[in-house]
Amino acid sequence: MKKLIVAGLGSMGWPMASNLLGAGFDITPYDVDTKKVEQFERLGGTGGELSTHLAEADGLLIMVVNAEQVRSLLFDKGMAEKLKQGACIVQMSTVSPGDSAQISREVRAIREDLYYVDAPVSGGVVGAEQGSLTIMCAGNPDALAACRSVFEVLGSSIFQAGYSAGQGSAFKAVNQLLCGVHIAAAAEALALAEKNGLDLEVMVEMLGGSAASSWMLKDRGPRMILPPDDITSMVDIFCKDLGIVCDAAKQSRSYTPLASAAYQLFVASSERGEGKLDDSQVIRTYRLLNGKG
Amino acid sequence: MKKLIVAGLGSMGWPMASNLLGAGFDITPYDVDTKKVEQFERLGGTGGELSTHLAEADGLLIMVVNAEQVRSLLFDKGMAEKLKQGACIVQMSTVSPGDSAQISREVRAIREDLYYVDAPVSGGVVGAEQGSLTIMCAGNPDALAACRSVFEVLGSSIFQAGYSAGQGSAFKAVNQLLCGVHIAAAAEALALAEKNGLDLEVMVEMLGGSAASSWMLKDRGPRMILPPDDITSMVDIFCKDLGIVCDAAKQSRSYTPLASAAYQLFVASSERGEGKLDDSQVIRTYRLLNGKG
Repeated sequence: MKKLIVAGLGSMGWPMASNLLGAGFDITPYDVDTKKVEQFERLGGTGGELSTHLAEADGLLIMVVNAEQVRSLLFDKGMAEKLKQGACIVQMSTVSPGDSAQISREVRAIREDLYYVDAPVSGGVVGAEQGSLTIMCAGNPDALAACRSVFEVLGSSIFQAGYSAGQGSAFKAVNQLLCGVHIAAAAEALALAEKNGLDLEVMVEMLGGSAASSWMLKDRGPRMILPPDDITSMVDIFCKDLGIVCDAAKQSRSYTPLASAAYQLFVASSERGEGKLDDSQVIRTYRLLNGKG
Repeated sequence: MKKLIVAGLGSMGWPMASNLLGAGFDITPYDVDTKKVEQFERLGGTGGELSTHLAEADGLLIMVVNAEQVRSLLFDKGMAEKLKQGACIVQMSTVSPGDSAQISREVRAIREDLYYVDAPVSGGVVGAEQGSLTIMCAGNPDALAACRSVFEVLGSSIFQAGYSAGQGSAFKAVNQLLCGVHIAAAAEALALAEKNGLDLEVMVEMLGGSAASSWMLKDRGPRMILPPDDITSMVDIFCKDLGIVCDAAKQSRSYTPLASAAYQLFVASSERGEGKLDDSQVIRTYRLLNGKG
């Protein structure tokens, strides 16, 4: 793989495309926002007629917001139709396992000669910028092998989730289940501590060194005590991601009481108008319900 | 503090008493099981008339199963009455914050001259044996200062939770909320992965290196995949500890949906006759509900 289209130049897609450019890949950028495309071309992206580039590219890397946008690119905009024979669609956006499998089937229905790799990531904007994402990939073994050089630029940990589209997205859903439940659990624990009049700073220090510790507790716990000026990740991201976890549970008929409860806590925060706050601020829903809001 | 009564020679109390003995404290052992008392006396514990030792001891360290046993020692057996003026009751068993505060009041009602230190621990049997417990203490500052030399033998991390009885136990409840929810969340995540046909070993490796990680996931996750021969801690321990978390939430009128759901999962495991299994085996309740049991 040398020539790629990168579709989606948002907070994740932009740094990913930049890193690929820096590593010597020929990158044609695409975004609905044409200003972003022009800006990326000025940095070294390949401009010109998109259809021509699609017909020449080895791969189409997609990093957009949801399954609807993936479908819009592939089918409404006709990108799947225009790709050259044997090209690989590398779908890295977070979508449900069922959506990923379905999109793969829809691609196959119109183009049996394309590869579809299901390859969501974790690590956020920082991971995208540093090229240290965790990549969970699934698909045809030859296509996965061909994607290796791309993934090694984008991430520091590459896990093969399986050979079927949907399995990468299922890995991501399981990952997000824990991330979301751990943030909500940290909020629940600290709100209980607060209601009991305990010193939260001593508490977070204690918890961080005990069997009660989690990556999220250590990262978000201090942000729950002192609301941050910056935003690591928004409440709305977990409404989306835990929503996908609940979809994945429904699609596979699995029992997920903790994920469902955590999802509803993030939604309650968002519905009160706090969706754009740092996700640590889900503690505000606990405080409200504890009469401390 | 030089002369102590240690009441409760179970899997926690025995190694704690041994460590204090090894550190040069004069230890008079007590347990309802007189064989254990005799055994500890042979190892160097001070034997003879318990009432005499109570009247001479600087402190009474209690490490039993629940609040009922604490009350039985202090009041039914009359230990509180028999202690010398200014002696310190060091209550290290896991009880609810409300029970701890209430027992402290009951002591004060009959003996205004005693100190009561609320000092539960975390770290389990391994921590007790290695003298590496985390100790969460609350009580009168002079009494806490006097207990320091005892705590330094028993633990490697000593946190002052506050000055009122109940605050140490509230710290412990918050700690156990996270421990219990994290075990259940790991089980929920891995059961979802299993239902989706994913490779659990790759999954646990991936999760352990991502933002989804927790101490419990790393420790109990592999035990969920391959049921262990040994037992770290039983399902029934979390029925008890998350029961105390729910009591603490009720006493302080706090919202704890994740802890409540996790509690019920452990209870469901126990009620099916699996209370003596390793707590990682709470995943069996998920499997059952997922039609994979």
